[in-house]
Amino acid sequence: MSASASLEFWFEFASTYSYLSAMRIEALAAEAGVAVRWKPFLLGPIFQAQGWNTSPFNIYPAKGRYMVRDLQRLAAERGLTFALPGRFPQNSLLAARLALLGGDEGWVAPFTRAVYAAEFAQGADISDRSILKSILDGLRLDSERLFSRIAQTDLKDRLRQQTGEAQARGIFGAPSLLVGDELFWGDDRLEQALSWARRG
Amino acid sequence: MSASASLEFWFEFASTYSYLSAMRIEALAAEAGVAVRWKPFLLGPIFQAQGWNTSPFNIYPAKGRYMVRDLQRLAAERGLTFALPGRFPQNSLLAARLALLGGDEGWVAPFTRAVYAAEFAQGADISDRSILKSILDGLRLDSERLFSRIAQTDLKDRLRQQTGEAQARGIFGAPSLLVGDELFWGDDRLEQALSWARRG
Repeated sequence: MSASASLEFWFEFASTYSYLSAMRIEALAAEAGVAVRWKPFLLGPIFQAQGWNTSPFNIYPAKGRYMVRDLQRLAAERGLTFALPGRFPQNSLLAARLALLGGDEGWVAPFTRAVYAAEFAQGADISDRSILKSILDGLRLDSERLFSRIAQTDLKDRLRQQTGEAQARGIFGAPSLLVGDELFWGDDRLEQALSWARRG
Repeated sequence: MSASASLEFWFEFASTYSYLSAMRIEALAAEAGVAVRWKPFLLGPIFQAQGWNTSPFNIYPAKGRYMVRDLQRLAAERGLTFALPGRFPQNSLLAARLALLGGDEGWVAPFTRAVYAAEFAQGADISDRSILKSILDGLRLDSERLFSRIAQTDLKDRLRQQTGEAQARGIFGAPSLLVGDELFWGDDRLEQALSWARRG
């Protein structure tokens, strides 16, 4: 192989199925010898372009009820806790901006897992700065520096651009996995995407 | 166990992911010791209740393009041929009525597989009576008797009732699997539903 195997993991912090993948992708990818690039993005603008002003799980109640049950079963099989937060979907903007910085600085994976655990295992509100601060504190990161960094225009623009790139590359939901231009949608396709990445 | 393990397989002939399940459910269920009840139904009325007048794969083009690629990859892994028919979704009304009779008379499984193969491997129009006739002929069934039977009101009503039952039990897509009231959606959940049925 001329280049090592890699895969892009596109995730949205408000997404329940992204939670499932975020909690297992690092271990599975290490086992498969695949490098993961963590790509936070926002589904809101993509859903709006489809004419949706909230999650499809809210728009279609039967689908929403099913999703909760499906998540409960899958989480139980994997030894995870799951409960839908009181407000769903949550506003994931600040968490996504922080995750972009985490990608630059090498702490995106543990930060992302901690945010998802707070949101879907503990029911915390991830748009609340004090929740995010305690997560950053737990990772021994300088939250004051990071909050001032994500208030800057260039970082806000980068998240907008990354969301635009997601849409341009055919992403319509989360999690999505990209191996080159090959798109895989959903936690159910994580193993298949890793195999694809390994085959090169 | 006081009762043997069983599972209801709810399928729509126009559904690509139902094709994937129909081609493998009998073998997998036999291996798991689970009896399958084949439940044809129509998604059209359920989609209409959600405000859709066609398949979501047509309404949301990015999702539609992805579905075709996903099916190609999954079909290739399983040694199946897949191509989206020229007209999608197809009108599945006659096939579904025939499948109801097949359930009564013991030929629903091979009939269903033959219809799906005609539609998604050979690109045939399954609303065409001559296509359905050749499928019935291939199974050595009396197509004249069966076509006259599905023209009768009681059979039409049964399909309507079955579709109403699907909706009442929380089904919003196909394939769906029911183990008692426990709902599993999608070919991706077939193994999990079989395990659930086996555990009782």
